[in-house]
Amino acid sequence: MPTYRLDLVYDGSGFHGYARQRDVRTVQGCLEEALFRLTGPVETAVAGRTDAGVHARGQVVSFVLPHELDIDKAWRALNGQLGPEMAIREVQRVEDGFHARFSALSRTYRYSVLNSLFTDPFLRHTTWHVPHGLKVEDMEEAARSFRGEHDFASFCRAAAGRSRVRNVLRAGWCQAGEDLLSFEIRATSFCHQMVRSIVALCVEVGRGRLRPAGVSEILDARDRQAARGVAPPHGLMLWEVEY
Amino acid sequence: MPTYRLDLVYDGSGFHGYARQRDVRTVQGCLEEALFRLTGPVETAVAGRTDAGVHARGQVVSFVLPHELDIDKAWRALNGQLGPEMAIREVQRVEDGFHARFSALSRTYRYSVLNSLFTDPFLRHTTWHVPHGLKVEDMEEAARSFRGEHDFASFCRAAAGRSRVRNVLRAGWCQAGEDLLSFEIRATSFCHQMVRSIVALCVEVGRGRLRPAGVSEILDARDRQAARGVAPPHGLMLWEVEY
Repeated sequence: MPTYRLDLVYDGSGFHGYARQRDVRTVQGCLEEALFRLTGPVETAVAGRTDAGVHARGQVVSFVLPHELDIDKAWRALNGQLGPEMAIREVQRVEDGFHARFSALSRTYRYSVLNSLFTDPFLRHTTWHVPHGLKVEDMEEAARSFRGEHDFASFCRAAAGRSRVRNVLRAGWCQAGEDLLSFEIRATSFCHQMVRSIVALCVEVGRGRLRPAGVSEILDARDRQAARGVAPPHGLMLWEVEY
Repeated sequence: MPTYRLDLVYDGSGFHGYARQRDVRTVQGCLEEALFRLTGPVETAVAGRTDAGVHARGQVVSFVLPHELDIDKAWRALNGQLGPEMAIREVQRVEDGFHARFSALSRTYRYSVLNSLFTDPFLRHTTWHVPHGLKVEDMEEAARSFRGEHDFASFCRAAAGRSRVRNVLRAGWCQAGEDLLSFEIRATSFCHQMVRSIVALCVEVGRGRLRPAGVSEILDARDRQAARGVAPPHGLMLWEVEY
């Protein structure tokens, strides 16, 4: 039975997150409804279940069908139904056994911070506006503490009995524009709220409310209460999934 | 009596244009309401009255007050009330006699076209998505025809008895990104729907539905019926006003 892969872009502003839920508008709900019209009932797998308000440029979805799909026709039909908040960049037939979630080697997220006194109306859906002075070098030092394998219990919403050990392959801040800071983090996988909790702590460090060296202590505490809140969802974007 | 200048950025998506109207939300309405709380009744002048859905990065507003204003306090108070769709970049006390509209030497607009098969959810409020192949060189040739002083009757909504002669100082297309085309036009002033009518015609040329040389004939016709419709408002941005 043929396996298909969809590469998906969406503006998360109007969705209650990726995962299907009753009575609310979700990315998965809209996508599976559109797929249903094309293929009949279908179960999809996804690389990264994004939270309400979180965006994606490189989301990946896979599914198996009992019959062949006309790739080009499917691509056009899906885009016709899903726009303009969502776009399918590509529909591909992939090798048997490919699974958007389990075949993924790692995920890359980006988080954008607008660091200026006044807000920018055109960036309000995709950046976190922080009007306080920020020391980027200190944020970069904080980011380094997260690299490697750690128990991220301090940075994840509790989930009884589940390991929160994760392997962070890359984590760093860069000046993406005059007033724009961008955080990129790549890990084999993430636990719930991990990126946004890390960003919130880095911003605390940037504001001078915590020494960069304090980050390791918070990591070592393995205690959700030790961290410093969660950055808002609209600055976060699932950037890429690596296979 | 002191004269003040505001430099204004707004996302026009949620407004019925700049100019105040009864019973609908307009930029001027929101701005004057916020100003009223700060200064009491005030009459404002504006450099460019943008249509519904049109954005601005460099809009300029001026007003005269019977008393002095605390610039920094005013700036903070206005931004606090107007965000997040609108931002005041700067509040300045300017020389007596300054008038946002009459003192302006010229205005610059930019229009953005996303020329790709699939849409980009993050650009849907600020670009016109044209999925057809476009020849940028032909569009650039079309743009050249508009430079200089012309009667723009073919490109403006009729207004009985008013001259539609305008002086275009600059008009050109550039490739602003992989799939992104940007049109920049600067003129002493514009008549109603002029930029969007010019853009619509350039896109017709880019699609090969009109020869670039046909543009001059349409200009010479001085007949609104000769043109080719109006590009959608959300691709247009008042970029800068020159004084």
